[in-house]
Parts: sequence; C-alpha cells; structure tokens
Amino acid sequence: MASTPTVTIHVCVTCRRQGDAEDAPRAGAALADAARAAAPEGVTIVPVKCLAACRRGPAAAISRPGAWSYVLGGLDAGDAVPALLAGAALYAADPDGLLPWRGRPETLKRGLICRLPPFPLPENPS
Amino acid sequence: MASTPTVTIHVCVTCRRQGDAEDAPRAGAALADAARAAAPEGVTIVPVKCLAACRRGPAAAISRPGAWSYVLGGLDAGDAVPALLAGAALYAADPDGLLPWRGRPETLKRGLICRLPPFPLPENPS
Repeated sequence: MASTPTVTIHVCVTCRRQGDAEDAPRAGAALADAARAAAPEGVTIVPVKCLAACRRGPAAAISRPGAWSYVLGGLDAGDAVPALLAGAALYAADPDGLLPWRGRPETLKRGLICRLPPFPLPENPS
Repeated sequence: MASTPTVTIHVCVTCRRQGDAEDAPRAGAALADAARAAAPEGVTIVPVKCLAACRRGPAAAISRPGAWSYVLGGLDAGDAVPALLAGAALYAADPDGLLPWRGRPETLKRGLICRLPPFPLPENPS
C-alpha cells in the first residue's frame, strides 16, 4: 500500500548557477530532474518557475502540510540532491514540523535563505 | 458585517537591525507593533519567532490562502509599515495570487528575499 507523500520539494527551474551564460541550460531544471530521479516514495518534487531567490540560486523549498517551509539556496554543490533528500527525511520525521539543525547536511545549513510558518494557520478559518 | 481577513503578514519579532547592540530592543518586535497598530481590516499581523532571514532583517512574510507567499527583508526603512500595507492591498486584489511588481513599493522591491508557491497545492490531497 502506497503511503501518502509527506514532503514536497519545490525546485526552482528558472534558477541559473552564478556565472553561467544566459543561454546555458538552467541549473535549476537539472536539479529538479536529478532530484526527481532520486526521490524516494513520500517525497514529491514539484518544479516551479521562480522562487525569486535568484541571487542565491539554484534554490528549492521544502514543505509539508502543517509544518514550517524552508527555502534553501546555493544548491549547485555536488551533494545538493542527496543533501535535499537527507534533509527531507529528517524533516518528515520531525514531530515539531521543523527541519532540525542537528544532523542537517552542511549544504542545507549554509544554504538556508529563510523559513515560513505553516500557512494557513490552524486557527485561521480562511 | 466584518469581512474575513484576506492577508496575513508574519512579522519576525526576533530580527535585529543590522548593527544594533545585542541588548537593544528588537527591531522586528517594533515593526510588528507598528504594523498591527496601522493594519486595516482584512490584514492580520502575526508575530513569529525567526523567519531565519537574519542577514536581511527586519523581515516579514505576506501570505493569503491559495496565493504565493513573499518574504521581504530590509524592513527598517522609514516607510516599512506603509510599504507593507500598500503591498498587502495590491496583493489582496491580485486575481493571480501574486504581489504585482507594478505599483509595488520600492522598499518591497529592494527587500524581496524569495517567494513560495501556495501550499498545500490544490491538487495535493494531503
């Protein structure tokens, strides 16, 4: 029986690697493809057009319902895909809906751009 | 009849202004207070502890259900509160769930840190 996906990773497919030529293949699109090929069950890779974090791209955001979302940049490191997936596993298991600092891959520590609280909030009726 | 709040602004109350002393009152807390005092009906100010955008604080995130969220920093400009509220009005009225560039206050253009797509996605059952 398939389990429900628990973590969504939005990967910005418009991101360029710093210094890449304008007409070079987009590093973000390659990241999305590689992440999708490696994602285990329970992790859904969703390509998105522009997280507006261009100065720190390639970038991605990791979310699950009722949890904080984390926006991560600098994902042109060689270990970006395994780091994202290791982070997703830590995050999926966290009872407080956080991406724990302890055990978080260094690429995701260095690349942290911001985080957002769960939204809509449980107490928000709309 | 009161209308349902349409826009939520999460204001990071742990943000310091760049260069402030460790024991100075938190610029983010002052921003949250000022925003709450000025917010019109339909805009809810929610203080949050750490958006993890410390290098670009004071920071806030603007969200509404089914729309993109925008994280904004550098909100120590003199016009931060009116800029946030003008942005909220533009955003509340946007049929595509975006914070339009045209008409967006300069403080919010300069301060854009990133944006996130609506989550959970409508097609995401969980």
